Amino acid sequence: MISFEEAQKIINNNIILLDTENAVLKTSLDRVLAQDVVSDINMPPFDKSAMDGYAIRSKDLFNELEIIETIKAGDIPQKKIGTNQCSKIMTGALVPEGSDCVIKVEQTKNISETKIIFNGKETQPNISYKAEDIKLGEIVLKKGTVVRPQELAILATVGCTNPIVYKLPRIAIMSTGDEIVEPGISPATGKIRNSNAYQLIGQVQKCGVEPKYLGIIEDTEEATFDKISDALKRYDVLLLTGGISMGDFDFVPKVMTKAGVQLYVQTVAMKPGKPTVFGRKDNTFVFCLPGNPVSSFVVFELFAKPFIKAMSGHTTDDKFLKLPLKETFNYKISDRLSWVPVKIDDNNEVIPVTFHGSAHIYALCYAQGFMRVEKGTVQIKQGEMVHVRQI
Amino acid sequence: MISFEEAQKIINNNIILLDTENAVLKTSLDRVLAQDVVSDINMPPFDKSAMDGYAIRSKDLFNELEIIETIKAGDIPQKKIGTNQCSKIMTGALVPEGSDCVIKVEQTKNISETKIIFNGKETQPNISYKAEDIKLGEIVLKKGTVVRPQELAILATVGCTNPIVYKLPRIAIMSTGDEIVEPGISPATGKIRNSNAYQLIGQVQKCGVEPKYLGIIEDTEEATFDKISDALKRYDVLLLTGGISMGDFDFVPKVMTKAGVQLYVQTVAMKPGKPTVFGRKDNTFVFCLPGNPVSSFVVFELFAKPFIKAMSGHTTDDKFLKLPLKETFNYKISDRLSWVPVKIDDNNEVIPVTFHGSAHIYALCYAQGFMRVEKGTVQIKQGEMVHVRQI
Repeated sequence: MISFEEAQKIINNNIILLDTENAVLKTSLDRVLAQDVVSDINMPPFDKSAMDGYAIRSKDLFNELEIIETIKAGDIPQKKIGTNQCSKIMTGALVPEGSDCVIKVEQTKNISETKIIFNGKETQPNISYKAEDIKLGEIVLKKGTVVRPQELAILATVGCTNPIVYKLPRIAIMSTGDEIVEPGISPATGKIRNSNAYQLIGQVQKCGVEPKYLGIIEDTEEATFDKISDALKRYDVLLLTGGISMGDFDFVPKVMTKAGVQLYVQTVAMKPGKPTVFGRKDNTFVFCLPGNPVSSFVVFELFAKPFIKAMSGHTTDDKFLKLPLKETFNYKISDRLSWVPVKIDDNNEVIPVTFHGSAHIYALCYAQGFMRVEKGTVQIKQGEMVHVRQI
Repeated sequence: MISFEEAQKIINNNIILLDTENAVLKTSLDRVLAQDVVSDINMPPFDKSAMDGYAIRSKDLFNELEIIETIKAGDIPQKKIGTNQCSKIMTGALVPEGSDCVIKVEQTKNISETKIIFNGKETQPNISYKAEDIKLGEIVLKKGTVVRPQELAILATVGCTNPIVYKLPRIAIMSTGDEIVEPGISPATGKIRNSNAYQLIGQVQKCGVEPKYLGIIEDTEEATFDKISDALKRYDVLLLTGGISMGDFDFVPKVMTKAGVQLYVQTVAMKPGKPTVFGRKDNTFVFCLPGNPVSSFVVFELFAKPFIKAMSGHTTDDKFLKLPLKETFNYKISDRLSWVPVKIDDNNEVIPVTFHGSAHIYALCYAQGFMRVEKGTVQIKQGEMVHVRQI
């Protein structure tokens, strides 16, 4: 049995970055850029009016000005501004030659059909100068950037319609356990429905990946060997989950070794999550998650999720919040590190979720995180700072 | 011009809940339940062993016990436990008749091939009793619950493979402005690429909805009228965005009125976001977002996002964090409420993102939120608490 930190280190040391691929702009949200993105244009590409108003020569500011043209956004000005001339101009439009200033329409008065005069006290140039935001050839987004809506805007601006991003891992989920049946079936005596696989599907979807669910494996060594051997060839990550018990996995490690998987982690000194298995064959990785739904949830969040995210280039570490405990918490001493489901109230105080027996299924619904409880702890006092991993 | 709060109130008052539909379990993540979910089973469905061990009669605890059967998870026990008898039992398996206690395998010793003895001091029953988690007919998830991975597990457990959820709104995005071209095109003089639409697509995707992008509308009243009239028939929400300027929308409100859209909001006393339009025709809603990318982003986040989320049953209000300002912030006085892009550092202190001119495009990339700055503010002092809307 190894510690949580040791297991974490082993798993992290196995992370490999996947290959890259060309994404399509509209579907690149939440993907990670695998190359710096360089601008093919200046932004603004020209001296641009920042206001609706009149383009003038600033030295003529207080003179009567003759309107010689109207320039809309997208137009190319046809006329050069000379002495005591101006062109009506819209926001975003190209500032015409000869002009060094745009006066706001609100600061002008029409004195005839074709003449205006400035009636303000002073003015800014009101011009967004060519290349002041982005220069041609400049790196606008660095390799490793996660694409959010605001990065989509930048990619669009510089014409990067097929950003090069890291591939997403191909992930398969398999269930084991002869006592489990699929949710559409009414369980016979002794059986229960498969809930873990669907929870896992959701957890993987939350990582931005659509997993392939391969169903419930028949509880024999042969069937398990065949399914695992086949999946090892076709996926980057296999997630195995039991129905409810640890017993289900009794022969899984043996079968995996036979299939050529090297097992790096077999049990972890944490609660829940002791029967956590992590292995590797070539560039395919296997996580066996414990059968209890809460255990499975925790192990996925702590070990598999950061691994999966890192494979597609995400580098955000899952932050542990340091928050005060709302009320003194008494705990049954354990020789393992524990993760206790907790709520976080509006004052950012931590409240352990109470649950009895195996009624774990609801514990997760009320929890906003897991609190780290060191081995040997019997009490954490009100107001003490605890480490919480948000879920 | 109306205040931010007035606009918010008008928009919120127009929210309608969409119809319901049957979802498929695997694709119901992040959807909202439109009906209470009732369990069709007890959970556990039977008295279930919580350990790998031996099912015994507790009164025989310290006697030599004869093993009469092995019960795996999923098995139906064939034998009743009599005096000084036991059955080997796996976690999750049905506890056999006659037994009221499971002793852990670690607390036993084999005294022959077929006999064991308990060598611990005391034991718990180690049985998860029938229906202790969920009772047949009990409501396990309430109407209005957002489906997360842990709720998927519950839906699977109770056999709810087609949960009834609220529909997602059909959302269309249209761009206006003759100065904009699509990102795949190299912009001619006076033109720029359409970045807003792609930012908006990402923002809508973040709401869990795949929008339909209808392209750039030709900048004429007729084309705009035709496109809007058609879209009003086929979508629940239309999002219109300009290239860069306010000028683009000059005739859009007129056209919308002609198309039968009642305009409820036309300008809002906030910065950015003054030219925000909100209207309704029957059960279709229209938001016209300002042309500047930062303005468009802010208006979507503050007005359109909560609206869209609420249509499909989400009730979470977008929380404003109350956090201290890291350094004194000087501001150019405005007669409108302002939203200033800010970072939040590791100590939860707020730092306004500095940007000059119209280099807004990067401001959003560095920001984690928007700070609310009341009208008339010229300074906020270091350490003062400010309201921040996270993005």
